[in-house]
Amino acid sequence: MRILVLGGDGYLGWPTALHLSRRGHDVGVADNFCRRGYDHEMGVDSLVPICQLQKRARRWEEISGLGLELFVGDLTDHRFVEEMLERFRPDAVVHFAEQRSAPYSMIDRRHAVYTQVNNVVGTLNLLYAIASQDRSIHLVKLGTMGEYGYPNIDIEEGFIEITHKGRTDVMPYPKQPGSFYHLSKVHDSHNMIFAAKIWGLRMTDLNQGVVYGQETDETTMDDDLATRFDYDAVFGTVLNRFCVQAVVGHPLTVYGEGGQTRGMLNIKDTLACVELALMHPAEEGEYRVFNQFTESLSVLQMAEMVADAYPGKVRIEHMDDPRVEKEQHYYRAAHTKLLDLGLVPHLLGAGTIHALLAVVDRHRERVNLEAIAPTVEWRKTESTLPTAASRAIH
Amino acid sequence: MRILVLGGDGYLGWPTALHLSRRGHDVGVADNFCRRGYDHEMGVDSLVPICQLQKRARRWEEISGLGLELFVGDLTDHRFVEEMLERFRPDAVVHFAEQRSAPYSMIDRRHAVYTQVNNVVGTLNLLYAIASQDRSIHLVKLGTMGEYGYPNIDIEEGFIEITHKGRTDVMPYPKQPGSFYHLSKVHDSHNMIFAAKIWGLRMTDLNQGVVYGQETDETTMDDDLATRFDYDAVFGTVLNRFCVQAVVGHPLTVYGEGGQTRGMLNIKDTLACVELALMHPAEEGEYRVFNQFTESLSVLQMAEMVADAYPGKVRIEHMDDPRVEKEQHYYRAAHTKLLDLGLVPHLLGAGTIHALLAVVDRHRERVNLEAIAPTVEWRKTESTLPTAASRAIH
Repeated sequence: MRILVLGGDGYLGWPTALHLSRRGHDVGVADNFCRRGYDHEMGVDSLVPICQLQKRARRWEEISGLGLELFVGDLTDHRFVEEMLERFRPDAVVHFAEQRSAPYSMIDRRHAVYTQVNNVVGTLNLLYAIASQDRSIHLVKLGTMGEYGYPNIDIEEGFIEITHKGRTDVMPYPKQPGSFYHLSKVHDSHNMIFAAKIWGLRMTDLNQGVVYGQETDETTMDDDLATRFDYDAVFGTVLNRFCVQAVVGHPLTVYGEGGQTRGMLNIKDTLACVELALMHPAEEGEYRVFNQFTESLSVLQMAEMVADAYPGKVRIEHMDDPRVEKEQHYYRAAHTKLLDLGLVPHLLGAGTIHALLAVVDRHRERVNLEAIAPTVEWRKTESTLPTAASRAIH
Repeated sequence: MRILVLGGDGYLGWPTALHLSRRGHDVGVADNFCRRGYDHEMGVDSLVPICQLQKRARRWEEISGLGLELFVGDLTDHRFVEEMLERFRPDAVVHFAEQRSAPYSMIDRRHAVYTQVNNVVGTLNLLYAIASQDRSIHLVKLGTMGEYGYPNIDIEEGFIEITHKGRTDVMPYPKQPGSFYHLSKVHDSHNMIFAAKIWGLRMTDLNQGVVYGQETDETTMDDDLATRFDYDAVFGTVLNRFCVQAVVGHPLTVYGEGGQTRGMLNIKDTLACVELALMHPAEEGEYRVFNQFTESLSVLQMAEMVADAYPGKVRIEHMDDPRVEKEQHYYRAAHTKLLDLGLVPHLLGAGTIHALLAVVDRHRERVNLEAIAPTVEWRKTESTLPTAASRAIH
């Protein structure tokens, strides 16, 4: 298959591109490097050093003999999107190319507007380009489990059967997202349902949980193939951050009570899920949702797992929650569709945590503790990032 | 009360501003005149001639002795929004200032992106300005009944109680909108629910049906106070169009079977509903939805009512539906909240239709039949408006 990976320079995009390349597909990689730009804006960096895209791609070719076609541009530039599709002629497009941090979207008005415009317009341009050029292209798009929020009933995969006043219908699952970023994904989902209906497009929306881990079978072949590892308060994810805090002897900081429960998955399972979606494409006119996570864990549970797995002494510290969210809530979410397609999950255990701790330990001299303290406050309309002295001007 | 009417130069914004002014409120009116710009883009015009905003406002002052404070600017310009709120210090904001035509949003990619960015960013800027300046301001925002789509169960007012696998929760009503315009309103609604939650804002979302009529108690005081009357295929609404077709002896054109059922309301009821929402503001942190329409009618029913009311001979013609929509469907939507607050509806009858026909008859020499034929096709990614020769360049 010819597969175009949008956002292919990012944390998950890059390992996905390598994985699909190794599996024998012709892979194109597109990126505008905004993710690297956010690091510069905030004065932070990936814990694991990463190469420039061109160098990584050359290294991959040297090691595997397999080429990657690179496209540098922005999805909000519709001509770029149209020309890329015309040139590459993909069978499928995997779309990771969105601003993906909730705290980043909550910094202030400008970041909220940027996040929604960037994500919504990029996806609209892509939908129009597919609809006008080749409606058989299968779009595999990254959504998030955070689209659903934390309702008091079970979460289903995208749709729910509702019986109301004696009548029944299957309807989109109601969404209650918790940040302007998560909202942007909800906007995308609604736009995609409509595009499938009017143009007959084929679409899979992967409502992904929180991903942890840094190593995949391909990225570990060479240091130059490594993917990012983020632990800062804006782009880092909670398990990665706990591992960094444990290694440098800092208390594991839990927001509020820590009862916030999230669907989690290993980075290796992300690659497997994307591949399964590609190998079993949606039908013409079908918009389907796979809930892409393997287990539900609370933040406090994860802190305790890291504390137990770490050989040294680890303290867990509760702090005020900068977000507006329930710190204890019901959480039960369906995630059977990918298992039905054959997913064999890597669950979180002491082994996985040891591997993560080892990654952190190799790069412990690069840890910037200032980057860990949360500074973005959901209740305020403006927050200042301490690591970027110049944030006063915007 | 100090009330700021955004989009106060438009079809509904202008009569709303006059109505609130006459009721004794201090009224500000903001507009960027994009609605007049769309007329220029498409080479069409309001059937009833309308004055420039400054002239209308002066005339209103001469007649009523009441001033309107005018603000000229664009909500996507956040400094304009912030400065306007700082200067006017409203108790409430009525927000009509969005691109509001489904066919306009479906012309092509550019119009879809414009509609979503314009509407979503304008509303985001407003939410941030209110949250940072004065969280007690009551935002009354125009949504649309089209947000719900046409499900096979009853439509409720914004939220629905769902029992699922033995548990129960009240959740946002699932939305299935039918154009990129309607989608933009759904995006707004989700953003507003979140803003109420994190910032404690007070918000009323008026999910309005299709409005017909042109005359209100204030606009009929003088020709210079008239509001728009749109009958073209892009901005016109169906009942207005049928009246124009009847008067000029053209068949009434029904899209498909005509079983499409819509919530309808008289322009006078729009003014009454907005006033009721303002007089009974939402609580702090409350996002509430009122379904703002007075009766449900199918397109074919309306055509038949016009044919019956018109003194001359009228033919009804069915044509291919340019939209992707159900031509026969279940439709039952709750609309009790505004009635509970005291709304006394003007229902559609022969009298109302005769008044509408009289408006058309007075301006029949201005009818442009070319503007009536639908040219925007939902199934295509690009449509050409016949009335605008220069549309080739975009």
